[in-house]
Amino acid sequence: MTGTHVHPLDAATTLTPTARDSYLGKTDPRYAHRIGPFGGITAATLLKAVLAHPDRQGDPIALTVNYAQPISEEPFVIEAVAVRTNRSTQHWSVVMTQGDTVVTTASAVLALRRDTWTSTEAVFPAVSPPSSLPRLGGPEAPTWFANYDVRIAQGMPLDTSRPLAEKDSITTLWVRDEPERPLDFVSLASICDVFVPRVMVRRPVRVPAGTVSLTTYFHADSAGLSACGTAHLLGTAHASHFGMGYHDQTAQVWSPDRVLLATTHQVVYFKE
Amino acid sequence: MTGTHVHPLDAATTLTPTARDSYLGKTDPRYAHRIGPFGGITAATLLKAVLAHPDRQGDPIALTVNYAQPISEEPFVIEAVAVRTNRSTQHWSVVMTQGDTVVTTASAVLALRRDTWTSTEAVFPAVSPPSSLPRLGGPEAPTWFANYDVRIAQGMPLDTSRPLAEKDSITTLWVRDEPERPLDFVSLASICDVFVPRVMVRRPVRVPAGTVSLTTYFHADSAGLSACGTAHLLGTAHASHFGMGYHDQTAQVWSPDRVLLATTHQVVYFKE
Repeated sequence: MTGTHVHPLDAATTLTPTARDSYLGKTDPRYAHRIGPFGGITAATLLKAVLAHPDRQGDPIALTVNYAQPISEEPFVIEAVAVRTNRSTQHWSVVMTQGDTVVTTASAVLALRRDTWTSTEAVFPAVSPPSSLPRLGGPEAPTWFANYDVRIAQGMPLDTSRPLAEKDSITTLWVRDEPERPLDFVSLASICDVFVPRVMVRRPVRVPAGTVSLTTYFHADSAGLSACGTAHLLGTAHASHFGMGYHDQTAQVWSPDRVLLATTHQVVYFKE
Repeated sequence: MTGTHVHPLDAATTLTPTARDSYLGKTDPRYAHRIGPFGGITAATLLKAVLAHPDRQGDPIALTVNYAQPISEEPFVIEAVAVRTNRSTQHWSVVMTQGDTVVTTASAVLALRRDTWTSTEAVFPAVSPPSSLPRLGGPEAPTWFANYDVRIAQGMPLDTSRPLAEKDSITTLWVRDEPERPLDFVSLASICDVFVPRVMVRRPVRVPAGTVSLTTYFHADSAGLSACGTAHLLGTAHASHFGMGYHDQTAQVWSPDRVLLATTHQVVYFKE
């Protein structure tokens, strides 16, 4: 297998086991953000360390990633430890270090899922199909953005055409890996961070901003994600509150067949 | 100071430092749930270990607690480590053990907050004042519930009077500590878990259910919480999706003056 045949997401999340709970990895310049890598690829890499571990039991239901410090272009070490394995759940603690510095911490909960009563209360947004919308991009987009085919149906960042008083922070978009790649937990974990900081949707100004802590809840199992294939997913994101340097944001990620795959929450730093 | 003058919340979250990053604590039978303590008091205790630490810098903006296993009535040890301190943020890893068993893990992000642009997009629900609503309680409530004055405006758990087809999982309620206690981060962290599993609101059946992972984002600083005094707070909670043994739920907690204090998210196990 040569580099040209490996999907960028799989290349960027490649981990080499070095001990029972340890992996070595490195950043991929294709997923670079303005400072350090895209938060989504870091979340995906930390989750992959858990999913690839021989002690893994079940599929992820919750993932929290804390971005303690920008990751530099040096290699990184991931330690992933199953701190508790119960009959149906498994709790993981994950730490990414560079030298003596902790750059990211994470926790993951896995579960053996089984059929129960089921219901979706969230409502699939009314949107145009991805084929009817232009792909977002251009020279102002960060490097990592080229790895995603994003088509915005509502809530373009930095849109100065709407009066400020009318604005909300909602963005609804279609997204898939570019090039196409079958959906799995690793790619979904990354997609959950494609929504730009809501402050740049609400206010048409570019301000320094970045994810500080990200939590994703997965509502599908491995089979449910496989069933999505390489189709565009629908995402819709909004914020509740902005103030004193931070805002929250929440997003839903749906399959094109209207299955809610994940809900994801984050707290975002912003300047000014 | 004798026990009769200490608020139950302060008694239950009392920690004795035993080393730089270590504390000893014990469960308080007044905050008992059906199995182990109320999840809120555990979250509050873990956060208190961070806030009481000499290395603390700033106020909490994010807290994630993973309930790995029910806590027994033995004493517990909390290790709270500041894994990274930046200019304006500080990242903590916290582990609660009993003997060799990890029972709970947590992460917290603290920040030195400063004035920025501010806006609240979430909308304060239209509700009757707490004085017009009855206090919830009774012999079926778990023990911990006696420490809260809860008045439900909408979405009573186990309500069989509404047809299932009309039901959603929304509960809107007023809540304060009982007896009254001035609001701070420790009490707010606990209050964020007072919303019963949404599955018991949506379906009028009592099923085994419990929080697996809880994340809270704090939108106020210490002064903002102090300003709430001992007043009832308004909380509103809902779920997005139920299925394969788990559901998510999200809540907002507001001051009576319509200041959004926290947004809180959790994934909940349920049987059947």
